[in-house]
Amino acid sequence: MLPFEVTATDPGSRARRGSMTTAHGRIETPVFMDVGTRASVTNCAPVDLAEVGTQVVLGNTYHLMLRPGPEAFRRLGGIHKFMGWSGPVLTDSGGYQIFSLPGARTITEKGARFKGYTDQQMHMLSPERSIEVQTAIGSDIMMVLDECIDSMSDEARTRAAMDRTHRWALRSLAARTNSEQALFAIVQGGIVPSLRKESAAFLTEHPFDGFAIGGLAVGDTRSEREDVTALSAELLPPDRPRYLMGVGTPPDLLQAMLAGVDMFDCIIPTQLAWQGTAFTSTGRVRLTRVPNALSEEPLDPLCPCSTCRTFSRAYLHHLFKCKEPLGPRLVSMHNLHYHHQLMSDSRDAIAAGTFAAFAKDKLEAIDRHEHSATRFGAS
Amino acid sequence: MLPFEVTATDPGSRARRGSMTTAHGRIETPVFMDVGTRASVTNCAPVDLAEVGTQVVLGNTYHLMLRPGPEAFRRLGGIHKFMGWSGPVLTDSGGYQIFSLPGARTITEKGARFKGYTDQQMHMLSPERSIEVQTAIGSDIMMVLDECIDSMSDEARTRAAMDRTHRWALRSLAARTNSEQALFAIVQGGIVPSLRKESAAFLTEHPFDGFAIGGLAVGDTRSEREDVTALSAELLPPDRPRYLMGVGTPPDLLQAMLAGVDMFDCIIPTQLAWQGTAFTSTGRVRLTRVPNALSEEPLDPLCPCSTCRTFSRAYLHHLFKCKEPLGPRLVSMHNLHYHHQLMSDSRDAIAAGTFAAFAKDKLEAIDRHEHSATRFGAS
Repeated sequence: MLPFEVTATDPGSRARRGSMTTAHGRIETPVFMDVGTRASVTNCAPVDLAEVGTQVVLGNTYHLMLRPGPEAFRRLGGIHKFMGWSGPVLTDSGGYQIFSLPGARTITEKGARFKGYTDQQMHMLSPERSIEVQTAIGSDIMMVLDECIDSMSDEARTRAAMDRTHRWALRSLAARTNSEQALFAIVQGGIVPSLRKESAAFLTEHPFDGFAIGGLAVGDTRSEREDVTALSAELLPPDRPRYLMGVGTPPDLLQAMLAGVDMFDCIIPTQLAWQGTAFTSTGRVRLTRVPNALSEEPLDPLCPCSTCRTFSRAYLHHLFKCKEPLGPRLVSMHNLHYHHQLMSDSRDAIAAGTFAAFAKDKLEAIDRHEHSATRFGAS
Repeated sequence: MLPFEVTATDPGSRARRGSMTTAHGRIETPVFMDVGTRASVTNCAPVDLAEVGTQVVLGNTYHLMLRPGPEAFRRLGGIHKFMGWSGPVLTDSGGYQIFSLPGARTITEKGARFKGYTDQQMHMLSPERSIEVQTAIGSDIMMVLDECIDSMSDEARTRAAMDRTHRWALRSLAARTNSEQALFAIVQGGIVPSLRKESAAFLTEHPFDGFAIGGLAVGDTRSEREDVTALSAELLPPDRPRYLMGVGTPPDLLQAMLAGVDMFDCIIPTQLAWQGTAFTSTGRVRLTRVPNALSEEPLDPLCPCSTCRTFSRAYLHHLFKCKEPLGPRLVSMHNLHYHHQLMSDSRDAIAAGTFAAFAKDKLEAIDRHEHSATRFGAS
């Protein structure tokens, strides 16, 4: 079992601080994990990740099974050596990517058949195959293959996918061969509270190292997401890590931490960086806007990251106007630093027993900035 | 006058080692300068440049006058502060870019009128305007505006452009206002030896800080380039730096150093990096080729750069196959390191008096690698 210890709980909320020990080092929770789908956090070298405070990199089994493929990982010695990252790695199972594939995929009880985008060949991603590939990748935390569905599906469809996800979870557990690699199950059940309860009750009967809350990244409203997150987190055992997949924005992270979630991942820091949008202590900044063109100020005067220490908004604006690749890189680093700083400050607040007030202040400030941005057109 | 000292000469060739002192530090010559057209060496942050051994960054007046514009440099304090690079900067005058503009530009005795690609407005780039913009940019070494022509032009056209380049050089000299910024003239005259002689004789009569050999980057054969370079270098005064513009590949650099050239710039290290092509001690490597897919070897086992110390060819291959921006970045750094190492080794060989033999060995090795690559299809 993955060693996981809760070291502090917040008296004013369900938030908790903890730490887990993987084969590649400790992870302090709550933690935001950087998305490195294809064994690269877009625009960031491993040395950059160390600098911005990254603890865990998240790879994707669907993409990595196609390229470079499990055989490459077996021959080259796993993802850590491959990408030059010596810290913990979590691999998603590929369930969500299969669900998102347009057209050519067939999902049966056995698994998902799909045409690979790299080789135009048919591939089978079954629960056993996903574990086999994740074993070759050598991640520290593996995820079970789940059946993802449209969150607008009716209850019968939602139940069927949940039941299959449960059967696949047990097949994944049986397929695991390397006890150094932790395995997390994924709670499904859409936005139906009784199904979420049933899913959590079923999965927590089995020796998974942790539990994820799945199926919430798309389609639902924010209040539905928050309700399901709070309910699911409450149903999960206190002695195992809880992971909310694909979330999210700073307010989403704060709300989920209040509900007792320990782990998160989201592409938003690097994805918004591509467009020149940065998270700052005074709200989101769109660097391409004209007022930045002559601004000597850093992106965020309160931020100690290397981008803010070294460059002005005017220079970042210039890089985006010129489409220089240095622009997305510098803003990716800043945005990741912002997320890791938020988590680090949250861990400190939980340890100090002041997280409820901390989160309330942060949420109000974010709300205020979004409001004023809408009204006045912030730069 | 820009302080420039020749500290060693090679007994077996015209090669020389020297150093010049700019407002932003010393430059050891022979030097390869990194092209940072728009105030960014593509894919490299200033901290990367320091790591790979960059001494000088080269900006371009034509591009920088359009974006961010001279007013931005005046208000933000010059290019060094703007891009976070505290070392020397040289700015090209924009003459070559004006020449390369398709269609809408008119060149008269006054200067070049053209439509800006950023604002669709008409701009005038005259010798005086180029110096004014370079003064705002705040480069350590400015270049005069020259009239570039197709190297296939007849002798009358070549002479007319050379004469105009001379008149423009004197207007540039008269327009200089900041004595901290050095100013180099550009020898023209195409591939006509008598014109090159005339151009060098005319320009060296005037107090320029250094002399560039222009008009050789395109269209000519390698032997024409080498002949003109050798002739021009010989005609230039020994106590001023000699700069061969837009050159070049490693063999071009070696040949020109043998002829006594001190300064070079070329986009080839970062441009080839975009395509996944690397310079190595065993010839050029195209990373996208299949044999690299499972190679645990570094790009170049003899190279001490961070890319070669940290990553395998298999990972670099993977990054290019996935179009991850980290790929071009890592190979750019390696290619720049390769060029700076070649120059550093050359400086050492000149100081040791062994450069002629060193260059011969290098040229033979490069020839051998290119030959075997053609015959056997190197990876």
